[in-house]
Amino acid sequence: MLTYELKKLPGMPLYEALYRCIRDDILSGRLQPGEKLPSKRALATNLEVSKITVEGAYEQLLSEGFICSVEKVGYFVEKTDPGFYDRATKNDVTSQNFQKNAATKNDKIFQISEKPEEKSIDLTANFSARFPFSVWSRLQREVMLDLGEKLLSPVPNQGLPELRNAISRQLREFRGMEVDPDNILIGAGTDFLYNLLIQLLGRDKTYAVEEPGYSKIRLIYAAGGVRCVGAPMDRQGVRPETLGDADILHISPSHHFPSGIVTTPGRRQALLQWAKTGEKWIIEDDYDTEFRFSARPTAAMYTMDRAGKVIYMNTFSKTLASPIRISYMVLPPRLMETFRKTLGFYSCTVPSFEQYTLARFLEGGHFEKHINRMRKLYKNRRNRILDAIETCPQAGKMEILEENAGLHFLLKISTQLTDAALTQRFLEAGIRVRSLGSYYHDPAPREDTHILVINYSALTDQETERLEKIFRGS
Amino acid sequence: MLTYELKKLPGMPLYEALYRCIRDDILSGRLQPGEKLPSKRALATNLEVSKITVEGAYEQLLSEGFICSVEKVGYFVEKTDPGFYDRATKNDVTSQNFQKNAATKNDKIFQISEKPEEKSIDLTANFSARFPFSVWSRLQREVMLDLGEKLLSPVPNQGLPELRNAISRQLREFRGMEVDPDNILIGAGTDFLYNLLIQLLGRDKTYAVEEPGYSKIRLIYAAGGVRCVGAPMDRQGVRPETLGDADILHISPSHHFPSGIVTTPGRRQALLQWAKTGEKWIIEDDYDTEFRFSARPTAAMYTMDRAGKVIYMNTFSKTLASPIRISYMVLPPRLMETFRKTLGFYSCTVPSFEQYTLARFLEGGHFEKHINRMRKLYKNRRNRILDAIETCPQAGKMEILEENAGLHFLLKISTQLTDAALTQRFLEAGIRVRSLGSYYHDPAPREDTHILVINYSALTDQETERLEKIFRGS
Repeated sequence: MLTYELKKLPGMPLYEALYRCIRDDILSGRLQPGEKLPSKRALATNLEVSKITVEGAYEQLLSEGFICSVEKVGYFVEKTDPGFYDRATKNDVTSQNFQKNAATKNDKIFQISEKPEEKSIDLTANFSARFPFSVWSRLQREVMLDLGEKLLSPVPNQGLPELRNAISRQLREFRGMEVDPDNILIGAGTDFLYNLLIQLLGRDKTYAVEEPGYSKIRLIYAAGGVRCVGAPMDRQGVRPETLGDADILHISPSHHFPSGIVTTPGRRQALLQWAKTGEKWIIEDDYDTEFRFSARPTAAMYTMDRAGKVIYMNTFSKTLASPIRISYMVLPPRLMETFRKTLGFYSCTVPSFEQYTLARFLEGGHFEKHINRMRKLYKNRRNRILDAIETCPQAGKMEILEENAGLHFLLKISTQLTDAALTQRFLEAGIRVRSLGSYYHDPAPREDTHILVINYSALTDQETERLEKIFRGS
Repeated sequence: MLTYELKKLPGMPLYEALYRCIRDDILSGRLQPGEKLPSKRALATNLEVSKITVEGAYEQLLSEGFICSVEKVGYFVEKTDPGFYDRATKNDVTSQNFQKNAATKNDKIFQISEKPEEKSIDLTANFSARFPFSVWSRLQREVMLDLGEKLLSPVPNQGLPELRNAISRQLREFRGMEVDPDNILIGAGTDFLYNLLIQLLGRDKTYAVEEPGYSKIRLIYAAGGVRCVGAPMDRQGVRPETLGDADILHISPSHHFPSGIVTTPGRRQALLQWAKTGEKWIIEDDYDTEFRFSARPTAAMYTMDRAGKVIYMNTFSKTLASPIRISYMVLPPRLMETFRKTLGFYSCTVPSFEQYTLARFLEGGHFEKHINRMRKLYKNRRNRILDAIETCPQAGKMEILEENAGLHFLLKISTQLTDAALTQRFLEAGIRVRSLGSYYHDPAPREDTHILVINYSALTDQETERLEKIFRGS
């Protein structure tokens, strides 16, 4: 177990002292890459500090890339850039940052009356917390009664025709897309589909992903053994002139996470033009389009694609939550043919039972009803949170940047704090949140600092209420 | 559409004439690699021949590697070894084979009274055709009622602890294995898990698979971009001295498919010894161990492994059929640690709902009951088929080679026919079956010809009865 004598220096919070001890141990090699750090609770007990202090230190180490976190497992020491130590000791950027923090200790955001005892409110997760249990359950029983032995027949590797037909109809009615069910491929989650795409499009290709973006996509491409580069964005979307030698572009033009940018029609045309020459493809990740509040969802790029260059992808796991695990993609006919020939041997990863149930759920109009109900619920929750922010004592320092689409918005805060210190302040107030900058693979540009990504979809009603109270000056 | 004038030569069946036309078109390049062949029905209509004739021709082309078949999609021309044409015209092995067929036309196996009108009995498939619907359905309802909102919580990427605990207990009670639930990883099918293993063990490694073997495993490794070599076997199992520079050995020591060989204890020791040196691993695919009739199932190699070199793998999709899609693997602790660090970001591919249901199914003893019921049913079916073979008019020409384990057995037939002609005869009699030789990647050795693989697990009662009748001299 790590043991440090934490000396609290004037103006330096305890979490920073702990952060420095661990950082120094990593830089000096006393803590080796791959080594597991003690759990927050265990370290807190060992050092006789609060769990919040350890959390703050770990959060800081995380945001600076000294450690990484593996869900449900723990924290591990990352490999450190060998030149870092010199640079760090020369410039001591981190220390400077902390000095800045210390200097602006009065840069008050929340009145923290007491150490929060409750579990912090998590604004970093993004999943639906409602599920139409009773309808789903009824459909399951019906499927079992109606189909019986038929459920035992092998499932076509592409997915059941019943479900593919239902998805095709769904896409026609709600996204204006004309999709041949034969070009739809069903899989157990987008992670799995990305892996299939690597095998289909080629491991010798270069994949460009949005910068900033959802870091998991990069991890999957890296694990798949392909070269992955960042595709920089401006307010119109990804800039085609920055794509260099990329062969595949992976984007979410209808609603980019986390910036919220909707790719403009002109930019879409430019990107399609880019894809037209040679063996290039665009993966259009259309996640969360179902949740548009202020306007009709933007049409999918798929509908503009005349050259058969767009691979459309969406998931029901986000809209219907984790009891089911079904995603799908629509391949251009030529790719579908290649898929069948070279990868058609892969068994479908989704059980027939789930596929039949979802097909009936879609055909029966239950999906639409569920989405409408959720949209209302999310809109209401969103408005409550926006209202709390706009009327809070520090409202003058806060600005909502993106509020027209999707299940999150951005909150810009006028502060001298670093992003790390800012998120730490939120954590101390009981709110776990990530900065926009933390979604950058490379350092974030200056204009994208001091912006927090507020994911509210996973909150319970009680949590929403607590969140309002915290903002409202609590 | 392909159009040929099929001239029936004396002693040459029509299917062979068609086979030759298509083969010649492939060799001459008139049919290009990747081209899709017409469906059997369409071609039969076009050429005004029976569907059985086209089936015979396609089967022959398949077994000689001229075309490949993609489930539910069709047949495609394969890339042909450029030297093949010369060799074929020089030696004309195929023609010789056919001459032999012609010469032994009286080598009677079945009395074929009339062209069978019914769908042929498929002895090439291998899946369970019973499912405990009522119990499963009841458990689903219970899970939904008892857990409700809890089903919406994110599932740990490794799989639910409840299911991992249940599997661990299961392995202890039925396979004598001591497995830490923390080392179990749940996934939607073995195809998916093989892909994860490639990412975990390395794409720069060489993977050895059993020769003969289940050809899909080779396809998956090839699609994963890794080098894959054949591991030749004798009656004791894979021979370690043939493994050359392989790093990973993928085997099913408890019951090899299709040979039925059970790897001997001495051979297991030798293979574990092989794995001990350097970064080598053994993937133990323990599929279908549950179905042993004459003896206790052999212990898993996992239990002999002191060095942490065996990755154990099994699936519920085979034992419980396709309405559910759950497989798992047990990783040695060191690999599990690496997995968490490098691939721990992958979301679990199995829905929480299925995982909870299966956990209860295991804990409630329903799996054991189901297996016992199925074992009885399979044993009975197997005995009926064996009995029909042993008392059939041609019994003197037939020998059962492997009858103690698993869901298939081998049938050796004393004949002058080639394997292709032999399976064609069976097809004409209404039985679809594959030869042992067809599971070889390289040409099969002489002693493994004239052996058919009889998979009976997917048959219905009616099909079993028809099969008996066909054998019994129909």
